[in-house]
Amino acid sequence: MGKANCSRKEEDLSCYAYDATARMYLPEAVLFPGNTEEISAILNLANSEDFFVIPRGSGSGMTGGSLAVNGGLILVMARFNRILEIDKHNLISHVEPGVVTGHFHQAVERVGLFYPPDPSSSEFSTLGGNMAECAGGPRAVKYGVTRDYVLGLEAVLPTGEIIRTGVQTAKGVVGYDLTRLLIGSEGTLGIITRMTLRLLPLPEVVRAMTVVFNKLETAAETVSEIIRRGIIPRTIEFMDNASIRCAESHLKIGLPVEAEAILLVEVDGKVDETKILIKQLKAVCMSQGAKRIKIAETKEEVDNLWKARKAISPALFQYGPDKINEDIVVPRSKIPDMVRKINALKEKTGLTIVSFGHAGDGNIHFNIMLDKKDKAELKKAEDAIDALFDYTLELGGTISGEHGVGITKAPYIAKEIGPVELNLMKRIKKVFDPKGMLNPGKIFPK
Amino acid sequence: MGKANCSRKEEDLSCYAYDATARMYLPEAVLFPGNTEEISAILNLANSEDFFVIPRGSGSGMTGGSLAVNGGLILVMARFNRILEIDKHNLISHVEPGVVTGHFHQAVERVGLFYPPDPSSSEFSTLGGNMAECAGGPRAVKYGVTRDYVLGLEAVLPTGEIIRTGVQTAKGVVGYDLTRLLIGSEGTLGIITRMTLRLLPLPEVVRAMTVVFNKLETAAETVSEIIRRGIIPRTIEFMDNASIRCAESHLKIGLPVEAEAILLVEVDGKVDETKILIKQLKAVCMSQGAKRIKIAETKEEVDNLWKARKAISPALFQYGPDKINEDIVVPRSKIPDMVRKINALKEKTGLTIVSFGHAGDGNIHFNIMLDKKDKAELKKAEDAIDALFDYTLELGGTISGEHGVGITKAPYIAKEIGPVELNLMKRIKKVFDPKGMLNPGKIFPK
Repeated sequence: MGKANCSRKEEDLSCYAYDATARMYLPEAVLFPGNTEEISAILNLANSEDFFVIPRGSGSGMTGGSLAVNGGLILVMARFNRILEIDKHNLISHVEPGVVTGHFHQAVERVGLFYPPDPSSSEFSTLGGNMAECAGGPRAVKYGVTRDYVLGLEAVLPTGEIIRTGVQTAKGVVGYDLTRLLIGSEGTLGIITRMTLRLLPLPEVVRAMTVVFNKLETAAETVSEIIRRGIIPRTIEFMDNASIRCAESHLKIGLPVEAEAILLVEVDGKVDETKILIKQLKAVCMSQGAKRIKIAETKEEVDNLWKARKAISPALFQYGPDKINEDIVVPRSKIPDMVRKINALKEKTGLTIVSFGHAGDGNIHFNIMLDKKDKAELKKAEDAIDALFDYTLELGGTISGEHGVGITKAPYIAKEIGPVELNLMKRIKKVFDPKGMLNPGKIFPK
Repeated sequence: MGKANCSRKEEDLSCYAYDATARMYLPEAVLFPGNTEEISAILNLANSEDFFVIPRGSGSGMTGGSLAVNGGLILVMARFNRILEIDKHNLISHVEPGVVTGHFHQAVERVGLFYPPDPSSSEFSTLGGNMAECAGGPRAVKYGVTRDYVLGLEAVLPTGEIIRTGVQTAKGVVGYDLTRLLIGSEGTLGIITRMTLRLLPLPEVVRAMTVVFNKLETAAETVSEIIRRGIIPRTIEFMDNASIRCAESHLKIGLPVEAEAILLVEVDGKVDETKILIKQLKAVCMSQGAKRIKIAETKEEVDNLWKARKAISPALFQYGPDKINEDIVVPRSKIPDMVRKINALKEKTGLTIVSFGHAGDGNIHFNIMLDKKDKAELKKAEDAIDALFDYTLELGGTISGEHGVGITKAPYIAKEIGPVELNLMKRIKKVFDPKGMLNPGKIFPK
């Protein structure tokens, strides 16, 4: 693959030692493979020469999935950046994993098609990383998550063998579902080298509204009520007061900094359909006690709302130098309970906890901002996470809706997954990767 | 579990020796377990005493998945027949696998909700069987298949251990996707004992139309064109002339027996939306050269159309005492090619081949009607299947869209699934079922 695509220089290694968890593990080498056969050769070598291989998209993962925690060779998938085909007749696309998700969105939208999964990182995360984590995002309320849009894969097994899974068609049930076993396996069962994705026709129009609430719990109850009435918006995003202030201080676009919570609701479809939906939503929100509703009239207004939503995460650091970011999910009807619990914990501990997220899915991102050097504060934060995870599971939820387990949630996985199931997963890993050479130290607790 | 729920009487055994393939394998015993723990105990015993266990829903499978091909004990899941909860707040249902799919449809529709997967067998097939095969059906064009509506499962492993997989929430990515590994595994990896299913709000209205064509290929091209224009109906069903005659002779409802093909197209959604869709569909169909379009005005008319569609399969036996029924899928744009190929084969061989199916998914059911006692004809039919499977794969399709592999397609699986992938599947089976006690002889070629 040529010297230009391999490096052991410290300045290169350190570029690929980080991800969005801000933890650092220096790899032993960085490689930029150019095709599937090269990856196969690398994994063959890894098995005979005993070195670890860690696949990496753009390193935007939130749980450390692309970190070389035990050393080894980082395989950067950036050269797998081609959209091979967008097939309008069959509403599918063949694409490589290094394509940035946002670029893919633009490419399919230019020809009137739509790829719904849109993690907040879509401007820099890659499709391959999205597959590995089974990324979600705001539009999941109506459209589901990454796994719902994958028909088939090409992947290199940890042993170097190349496999093709799934189909290129709307249906297919021949053999076990290896496709969805790879999706969400966090780069531990294989390296995806090509994907066949399902597309939809692009909705005619998208309309957005912001709904302002005096009380956090009222906002949470409104989310539950919208769904109960059978209204399925494309997104229902939730921002608490700290999130609103955070975004406003960053962007200065006139967000209501006094509000306890905002919902950002989008609907899509035919023009007439969206008009009806907006009307229904206004009625539900007012009857639930919303303080103010604002319909975004222009594209600029809609774009500003999303800028605000996406600005929260990076802007949070004004509250503290370190962030612990969790992405729990609870049944939608339990969001009010979860919000009450978080509020109670904030009061009890004095910790800065900022909540926002995809309320339409019950997917709440709570962020504890702190200085990790302050050991007493760190301990308090860890206890708070423990308590919030326990409560999430008690409410029938899950400790990760879209970030995966990686290294940061591995110590907690046994809270959610029982010993029999965990053992089954480990034995599946062993089938794929007998020597444990691919992306070690992830998902499973030590 | 009591004597009343076990039998070794010949008259009982013979009732459970058949399925929809019309093949017969007498089991050694029939059991009707009443709860998960009983199934666990049976599988524990099976592993220590060395007998096979074969789970069975209503025995409507098309590929022999529930047949005791190597003897053993049939586990009839009929007593697992409770709908445990329909949760309107979270759009989910907890349900047992012995519930008949059609009963579940009615139950959720009564409270304004919707479970889209609807195999043609829905009036008698069970949800558990639908899970095991990953059933599809006509509505998959718009709504996807069974796997898209399963959030979590309880299952008994072949070794007797009880597992819980997945989540009860809209998102969840903790650990490997055991849920979708079980879905479509044809009862070989575990016995599903409880499911958490995702529901949608019930569409406001469903409208149907029949489109009559003078030429089979024009009908096939119209399907492709509808999708290319970004119109996604809820169903696009296809019937060729032999299917039309078949259904008409059975039902006498005035189907156009002279037509070469009919499309049965349904749309759903809000009233205004469906009006627009019907208008768009009429325009596409006319511009493609449809001979006649009839909008079903009353519920009775719509019901009659579905009666006709569902009558084809049983009514086919007027063409011959035996039926070989395949459910191939091709990319939608390749339906015209497939239809041409089937026509050419009919002419060349003189065989009676009847085609109908879910054209919107590219899922064509072709049925060869014959007398299997006529060995020369049987050989001709087997050669035709070989040729049609090869051509399906050449077009980028799959040899099964919804029936699974079972025993009837096991001899062909290696045409579609490569040796590395097949080996991987076998090793996964081994992880779940080291002694091979659960549903042996299925999926994998001998």
